[in-house]
Amino acid sequence: MAKEKKQPRPKAETPKGFRDYFGAEVTERAEMLQAIARVYHLYGFEALESSAVETVEALGKFLPDVDRPNDGVFAWQEDENDDWLALRYDLTAPLARVYAQHRNDLPTPYRRYAMGPVWRNEKPGPGRFRQFYQCDADTVGAPSVAADAEICAMLADTLETVGIARGDYIVRVNNRKVLNGVLEVMGLEEGEQRDAVLRTIDKFDKVGESGVRELLGKGRLDVSGAYIDGVGLSDEQAGPVLAFLTSKSADTAETLGNLRTAVGESVIGLEGVQELETIANLLDAQGYGPDRVVIDPSVVRGLGYYTGPVFEAELTFDILDEKGRKRQFGSVAGGGRYDDLVKRFTGQAVPATGVSIGVDRLLAALREKGRIGGSINGPVVVTVMDRDRMADYQGMVGELRRAGIRAEVYLGNPKNFGNQMKYADRRGAPIAVIEGGDEKERGVIQIKDLILGAQIAQSATLEEWKERPSQFEVPRDQLIEKVREILEEQGG
Amino acid sequence: MAKEKKQPRPKAETPKGFRDYFGAEVTERAEMLQAIARVYHLYGFEALESSAVETVEALGKFLPDVDRPNDGVFAWQEDENDDWLALRYDLTAPLARVYAQHRNDLPTPYRRYAMGPVWRNEKPGPGRFRQFYQCDADTVGAPSVAADAEICAMLADTLETVGIARGDYIVRVNNRKVLNGVLEVMGLEEGEQRDAVLRTIDKFDKVGESGVRELLGKGRLDVSGAYIDGVGLSDEQAGPVLAFLTSKSADTAETLGNLRTAVGESVIGLEGVQELETIANLLDAQGYGPDRVVIDPSVVRGLGYYTGPVFEAELTFDILDEKGRKRQFGSVAGGGRYDDLVKRFTGQAVPATGVSIGVDRLLAALREKGRIGGSINGPVVVTVMDRDRMADYQGMVGELRRAGIRAEVYLGNPKNFGNQMKYADRRGAPIAVIEGGDEKERGVIQIKDLILGAQIAQSATLEEWKERPSQFEVPRDQLIEKVREILEEQGG
Repeated sequence: MAKEKKQPRPKAETPKGFRDYFGAEVTERAEMLQAIARVYHLYGFEALESSAVETVEALGKFLPDVDRPNDGVFAWQEDENDDWLALRYDLTAPLARVYAQHRNDLPTPYRRYAMGPVWRNEKPGPGRFRQFYQCDADTVGAPSVAADAEICAMLADTLETVGIARGDYIVRVNNRKVLNGVLEVMGLEEGEQRDAVLRTIDKFDKVGESGVRELLGKGRLDVSGAYIDGVGLSDEQAGPVLAFLTSKSADTAETLGNLRTAVGESVIGLEGVQELETIANLLDAQGYGPDRVVIDPSVVRGLGYYTGPVFEAELTFDILDEKGRKRQFGSVAGGGRYDDLVKRFTGQAVPATGVSIGVDRLLAALREKGRIGGSINGPVVVTVMDRDRMADYQGMVGELRRAGIRAEVYLGNPKNFGNQMKYADRRGAPIAVIEGGDEKERGVIQIKDLILGAQIAQSATLEEWKERPSQFEVPRDQLIEKVREILEEQGG
Repeated sequence: MAKEKKQPRPKAETPKGFRDYFGAEVTERAEMLQAIARVYHLYGFEALESSAVETVEALGKFLPDVDRPNDGVFAWQEDENDDWLALRYDLTAPLARVYAQHRNDLPTPYRRYAMGPVWRNEKPGPGRFRQFYQCDADTVGAPSVAADAEICAMLADTLETVGIARGDYIVRVNNRKVLNGVLEVMGLEEGEQRDAVLRTIDKFDKVGESGVRELLGKGRLDVSGAYIDGVGLSDEQAGPVLAFLTSKSADTAETLGNLRTAVGESVIGLEGVQELETIANLLDAQGYGPDRVVIDPSVVRGLGYYTGPVFEAELTFDILDEKGRKRQFGSVAGGGRYDDLVKRFTGQAVPATGVSIGVDRLLAALREKGRIGGSINGPVVVTVMDRDRMADYQGMVGELRRAGIRAEVYLGNPKNFGNQMKYADRRGAPIAVIEGGDEKERGVIQIKDLILGAQIAQSATLEEWKERPSQFEVPRDQLIEKVREILEEQGG
């Protein structure tokens, strides 16, 4: 075997745009995903874990007239056959491939959920990573909007299950078909002007009604001072679009009435309104009223992509933004009906509807709400006072673990006791257990409440702390009892 | 925007060597990993999820005198800076990178566990995939063999927790230092002959004592009929190696005595024996006797790689191999001490010890033992008899779910009832619920026990089945009660 070339020491760094997750970051996400999976499973959805690697053809990531895949994916060429492989950039493209590949063995409709990392070959930025989690649920092969209603109900249940209280979220539902009807009554055929109108609608979130009105018309002075050219519609022509975007009323029947007016005689438009009505009725009958799932034509995200109902879950509680201003937390999940999912592979249109939860955003929301984080999670640390009595100390942690208490013995160099206490601190240990030779002889142990100890250290002048000792001597056989007592006090 | 080039339909296939996992395959693995994580966590180990993508330098995957990474990894070059990135091929190399990168913020010793997919750019074969799961626990920065003993105890606890009964597994422990002592007394310096002896020892599993004796000497006729040249040692020279490999006795003290004889005066050898004795004593004191963790110098796997204690967990129950012969299930986990883990990055040797569980093999063992699989997992299927009463049917599944019962409504075209029953069958549904117009009027529903129904269909001639109806008419308000009753019967 050839010897390895002498090389400079490698840098210990993640590639740019990638990061590591430690301890609670990992377990909190895992627990949230498990809770979500339980809801999905209860709804009859089946887990699917597709491979992280796909052919670029399956992902649909070949650009025209170029000989390598889209920059948006991480791709490489196989040595043996020159095939291009790539890391999946979402969980939807693999679902399409899996369904097309296994459709004869899968039930129809096929309800599936998937959760896992996806990769984007994009310029990383603050808080923008090139590997992140997605968590999707989709129903393939069900043309009925009952499938869309089910997804909306499941989304509401999921948010409540992970810890978002009713009233703190709303699932909004719109329908691309209604928009198509609006475009039809406006006389906009497929083409450049229609695309321009769609792009303008997409800005409704940012620029609001008056902004969209200007952009559909002559144009608009941007906040930056730049003048943005308008689409050039007359006020009259732009009317149906604005009527559509602003048709939401406090009353669902009224919203639907407004939409009917906006789509006029358009068959596709009326079909869209009918679908929204069916969804609202199905959900109402199951107790998902407009306080949880609401018909809201101002939902524009995804309208350009989806072909039927579109949904978005927003968290409605306030947080402070980076400038200290109050704003709503915002979107944590979105989805809709996309009936061309499998067509690329089979030539056959297969109806499909689904939702994707923004895992990191939902985790951030749960932290914001105090639903996760902040709990005492470190192990009880048993210190080593006598290197030759390691078996005794390992016996103690064994006892603690059998009682279900997270515990570890200090495994570094035990010479310096201060280092052991520093270690316990870094581990977030709630309790340290100490048994020196003297204690061993007397059949006792020292139990140190590190949380209380830290509190006392911080406010040592207060009378009340003086009466509360943070270190206790107890008989050896009361180890479990006393540790449990302190952990309960700390948790309370 | 340019139009997409007209291309032939992509094939709906995973790349060669990759596969998808469906339903129970995903959830059973997830549950096993969760159970393992709970044990690791109880032992004070912290979760770590490193990025799937690393620089090839960090992975140490540049071969000498070539300008691209080792074929063993999936690698690609970044567009902007020509850096090579690659998918991790195990969880150990990333641990080394993470520890080197974050060592000032991590506790020392650092106990961490990691579970997730790894990727190998190797020729796929039957049952050999290019993406698979690993599940590792390591302690970095603890020189004491108490850390090794802890890993062995944790491994035993882990196997029992996931469902391998005591008596069905054994954790075997060996030590590279003892082997080094043996090589020392043989007078074998580092060099070609020593490497040849190490390679020969590695075959002990396959060729046994007599085979190793021949291979250390003149050579050996292979089963294929080929003659394998030997290392060329005399019988006397080969003696210590064979004494080492066969030194296991039913009694640990005797095993250790045999090893002491084998290493003679070698300082490193005696240190190794002493370490094994310490490990055995520590484990014994905690109740991990030689029926669970045993000193066994015949463990050769990893001896070439590790620098201190080496462990391997084997399952000792019999299974039938592909030819119908009984054989032991074999290894499901292995590990050891490797003190040069971080040195590549920092120049500093950092002691580290750990274990890796073969996720797929352990899953296969649990299936073999009937610990997972075989349970009724499909949802209750509510059929659609009247398309206009979807709200009623969704109300039923809502009720069932609120009672914690997995349930779904049929979302395909409801016209053909036979299709609905075929769907229920494919879903593995234990029960179908039917409410036609007639039932609705009379305030009843039909509940069909599909498991019992299938049994009756299979053995229709038996008298006993005739008396057991598989379909029941019950009042609508007894839906939950009756479904629960049937599910309990089916589970029993």
